[in-house]
Amino acid sequence: MQITPYTRMVYYHETDRMDIVNHSNYIHMTEEARVDFMNKIGVGYHDMEAQGILLPVLGVTCTYKHSLHFGEHLAVYSTITRYNGFKLELQYEIRCVETGALCATATSSHCFTNANLKPMRIRDKFPQMHAFFTQAMEVTYAEGSSC
Amino acid sequence: MQITPYTRMVYYHETDRMDIVNHSNYIHMTEEARVDFMNKIGVGYHDMEAQGILLPVLGVTCTYKHSLHFGEHLAVYSTITRYNGFKLELQYEIRCVETGALCATATSSHCFTNANLKPMRIRDKFPQMHAFFTQAMEVTYAEGSSC
Amino acid sequence: MQITPYTRMVYYHETDRMDIVNHSNYIHMTEEARVDFMNKIGVGYHDMEAQGILLPVLGVTCTYKHSLHFGEHLAVYSTITRYNGFKLELQYEIRCVETGALCATATSSHCFTNANLKPMRIRDKFPQMHAFFTQAMEVTYAEGSSC
Amino acid sequence: MQITPYTRMVYYHETDRMDIVNHSNYIHMTEEARVDFMNKIGVGYHDMEAQGILLPVLGVTCTYKHSLHFGEHLAVYSTITRYNGFKLELQYEIRCVETGALCATATSSHCFTNANLKPMRIRDKFPQMHAFFTQAMEVTYAEGSSC
Repeated sequence: MQITPYTRMVYYHETDRMDIVNHSNYIHMTEEARVDFMNKIGVGYHDMEAQGILLPVLGVTCTYKHSLHFGEHLAVYSTITRYNGFKLELQYEIRCVETGALCATATSSHCFTNANLKPMRIRDKFPQMHAFFTQAMEVTYAEGSSC
Repeated sequence: MQITPYTRMVYYHETDRMDIVNHSNYIHMTEEARVDFMNKIGVGYHDMEAQGILLPVLGVTCTYKHSLHFGEHLAVYSTITRYNGFKLELQYEIRCVETGALCATATSSHCFTNANLKPMRIRDKFPQMHAFFTQAMEVTYAEGSSC
Repeated sequence: MQITPYTRMVYYHETDRMDIVNHSNYIHMTEEARVDFMNKIGVGYHDMEAQGILLPVLGVTCTYKHSLHFGEHLAVYSTITRYNGFKLELQYEIRCVETGALCATATSSHCFTNANLKPMRIRDKFPQMHAFFTQAMEVTYAEGSSC
Repeated sequence: MQITPYTRMVYYHETDRMDIVNHSNYIHMTEEARVDFMNKIGVGYHDMEAQGILLPVLGVTCTYKHSLHFGEHLAVYSTITRYNGFKLELQYEIRCVETGALCATATSSHCFTNANLKPMRIRDKFPQMHAFFTQAMEVTYAEGSSC
């Protein structure tokens, strides 16, 4: 399954006085990319929540390698590193579209819960969604993806 | 009734590449100040919502006069400009604590609604809260208030 | 001159506990739309700043009419309401793409300054940019613009 | 050396549609706490930057244990886990003041650089600052610290 990365411009309000994107905003980017990724693999994030399934964040990491600047565009390549119907872990590569530089790598880990934040397995109750996530473990990105 | 302004430091993540607080963050400041103001006049904002009363924002304005910078502290002086048990309007003066400079003036307008966002009058159902808002129209600030 | 509006999805992190986009985030949307609008009319916002021209915000207003929700997309239609080579004022209509509803109207006012934030006229020093802004006062949007 | 934690109220605009503080906002909290911590140990963060020393973030982690809600206050206990005059690493415990619950643990890693983001050792050029950081490795927090 081939998909495109999540792309957008760097926002002025994301920069800080060091004239680079403030490190805290990369966590926003991974959240946006996660929603976009799930929509692209067939799981509408909003629909998933409407069915009473939540995906709270258990943890995040982010390693900063190269600054992003106003005037540039970012592309986030998301992949599933772990999925067992109960836990979900993703990794993200955040690149500058103009230079191709790898700006940051990040991870997020989650478990599926019901609307009361009680952990649950989605395999039996939501087989279609389970299939989408399983297939998405084989996702690849087209070469030279751009905005 | 005399109260103190809402004060805090300027956050690094609020600055932008012009090395000043980004204009969009002043709306955050007024929201924080509004909650603090209402807590100080006797209306716990969280308790108000817990009782099924919401206070959605109908409109905001903000006029920028003097920049705020990282390393400075801000103080927000909030006053009620209109309250009739149905509509509520506030005005805010945002000052730099270190220099005393008036950095921005802002307004926000609201109406009270129930949990389904249907407009309502609070006077009869919530007389205690109505009294707090009415008294708060006479609020004053102590001279030389600081962090 | 016909252009397209600025469009994107509503971000999860823009919502608040009322399950709508928090009012403060609309000011982010207008900033993003302003940059996009200026890029589309021929004035690269980043290039403008690189030439030593800044466009600080003197004031903003925003009137909220209809909530935006996670799962929806927004479209911002920006137009210049005043330009005289010294001052610039824009107005914004923020619409929900899925329903067509007008969610908010906003304005922002600016003056051009040099890198030291000293006001200046751009007409003589930057005639090309002046021409772009003048032409952009006639901008129109295509019917049925979408994401 | 005994200091107090960084404390503040939870902001309305930090919540999301799950009625908890959005995970991305915890990174803002650690940045605010880092600045406050450094001010308390004798290194004025703003002054440090004014002397041409920057402290960019190389990486962050955050593990979420217990939700924070509007109406609550947070307290961040920061400690230095590594300092050698070149690299600086901190860990953060983010607690709910009202319940004492540990809401999240986080880390951030940095290296000192000059204004051009070139890495440098601060020991020789800035002995006073080096002493403050060295002493701060022994920092403790008073029992029952609160807002």
